[in-house]
Amino acid sequence: MKKFDAVQLIFQPLLQQKGDSVWQPQREKGLAFAPTNIALCKYWGKRDEELNLPMTSSLSVALPEKGSMTHLSLHNKNEDVVVLNGEALSPDSQFVKRIKAYLDLFRQENTWHLLIDIQLNIPVAAGVASSACGFASLISALNDMFVWQLSMRDLSLLARLGSGSAARSLWTGFVEWHAGVQSDGMDSYAEPLKMEWSDLYMGILLVTREEKSISSREAMQRTIDSSVLYANWPRKVARDMVIFRQALQAKNFSLLAGTAESNALTMHATMLSCWPPICYFMPETIAAMQRVWQLRRDGLELYFTQDAGPNLKLIFTGKNKDKVVEAFPDLDVVKLFVE
Amino acid sequence: MKKFDAVQLIFQPLLQQKGDSVWQPQREKGLAFAPTNIALCKYWGKRDEELNLPMTSSLSVALPEKGSMTHLSLHNKNEDVVVLNGEALSPDSQFVKRIKAYLDLFRQENTWHLLIDIQLNIPVAAGVASSACGFASLISALNDMFVWQLSMRDLSLLARLGSGSAARSLWTGFVEWHAGVQSDGMDSYAEPLKMEWSDLYMGILLVTREEKSISSREAMQRTIDSSVLYANWPRKVARDMVIFRQALQAKNFSLLAGTAESNALTMHATMLSCWPPICYFMPETIAAMQRVWQLRRDGLELYFTQDAGPNLKLIFTGKNKDKVVEAFPDLDVVKLFVE
Repeated sequence: MKKFDAVQLIFQPLLQQKGDSVWQPQREKGLAFAPTNIALCKYWGKRDEELNLPMTSSLSVALPEKGSMTHLSLHNKNEDVVVLNGEALSPDSQFVKRIKAYLDLFRQENTWHLLIDIQLNIPVAAGVASSACGFASLISALNDMFVWQLSMRDLSLLARLGSGSAARSLWTGFVEWHAGVQSDGMDSYAEPLKMEWSDLYMGILLVTREEKSISSREAMQRTIDSSVLYANWPRKVARDMVIFRQALQAKNFSLLAGTAESNALTMHATMLSCWPPICYFMPETIAAMQRVWQLRRDGLELYFTQDAGPNLKLIFTGKNKDKVVEAFPDLDVVKLFVE
Repeated sequence: MKKFDAVQLIFQPLLQQKGDSVWQPQREKGLAFAPTNIALCKYWGKRDEELNLPMTSSLSVALPEKGSMTHLSLHNKNEDVVVLNGEALSPDSQFVKRIKAYLDLFRQENTWHLLIDIQLNIPVAAGVASSACGFASLISALNDMFVWQLSMRDLSLLARLGSGSAARSLWTGFVEWHAGVQSDGMDSYAEPLKMEWSDLYMGILLVTREEKSISSREAMQRTIDSSVLYANWPRKVARDMVIFRQALQAKNFSLLAGTAESNALTMHATMLSCWPPICYFMPETIAAMQRVWQLRRDGLELYFTQDAGPNLKLIFTGKNKDKVVEAFPDLDVVKLFVE
């Protein structure tokens, strides 16, 4: 199935009710914020590349105040313009092409064009899920501008068509994205968990702000094509998802954060086994890991996760915050559940 | 089966012929050199911990002039003494205990004791296979001193009981260690391949001379116990062994060395997925890998392998030797086939 047909399927009830007016903006402007999310159980590998359908379910937690604010407004020119953090992007850039292709899913030939003004307060493409919150805020802003009043489930399905993990970026707190089994992807959406954990912190340890050398999309595909170890990744996820639920239920921090660390390292392990090998570790990444492990051996309950990039996200609780910041002075500390 | 019983089985023909005199030294001294070996297809995981029987076959190449020279002599005192590179080791050290336990396999209660003088020209326990050549030279020196005149196959079986990869350290050139299927291990020995490759070089890149934080023995066991990715390691080895044979047949350097690199990275990948995680990468290891990959993208045919330690062994051919040394000035270059 093509993305276009998936969109038609999701909009079917609305189309029956409102007809083609669905594809016309109802307001001059649209606005939405979406928080970025960090997976504790990673999304790694697609069962359908076109629809971004994942091989496995995944579990994330949002960084409540880090993310993407998207302002949409009608644009008189004959093309969309994307402004990122105040700077107009070249129409030839990959990111602009991806956004235009996404808007085309909702646009009948040249009926409207948009000025898309995106404010990101996290680094772009450095493994801090900028495309996840980017597409989540974009679909939410479209929902606002076109007054679709879609359900969160439908928004999650649509966000997924822009970027897989965007499906999870529509809520704060813990979010589970169900892998689903259907080929049309209608059962592959995310939902928030009811659980809160007010004492939980994440610290973003930026090893570099450089864009990553290989996109997660490409890395994922190469892993599936060439890593003999990938075959056991779905089994790892199935096990870890059970443990995550137990850990959340029991508020067992070490179990939660330790499983997140193991899950992340296992994802990177599948990449090392590719040919050519994929290695998102930089020397500074390893140095930071070794420091975390040493602190843990010394008794500090500190864990990390790592996405498809060299940066680490440290996981800890409030009582250890000062010690963690002492060990990592440049850490960008985020309280995961705002009171 | 216990090691002691395995030794009895190997010596059975000799015992029938010579009786218990087999267990008495026939000379005052014994001497042997064994080269260290670097696996291109790694030995990772045991099917029998007592007998060091491997889960898979493996393939190595010897560093012809790097290794262990062992001098044995009768010692009047009531215990064995181990001297390593001129320094007497404490009787309580792990290494001395391992050697004594190994000698006990051939000794009837307190009949003799030895001064074991080992000269290693490679760093100890830093992932350059010091225990492999150590035990290979020890069994060869015993063979000399006791005048057993054992076959190379029997020496390989006996060396394996000291340290798994010692089974491969009795020859120069390429050596294959057959995993075998028997529970007594009598079919798990190594053999040299006839193939020579006079243009092949290995460069030892010492990132550190420190002893490794976790022994390969312990790392192997934790991998089998806790790494969900390990299940696919035997499949990786089976595939790679086929490719290695093709590469040797066709003298296809990139295929040989690339497969060695992929095999090593896959072994380390299985360790990252352990809990607690095992990571032999140091920041300098990653920096060196990234440099190798950059040089390769720039057109240089340069690959690496890595054992259970932070150091890399670079693999290249004669025509690129100067370029490789220019990029890595501290490299210890070894010609693998001496003319």
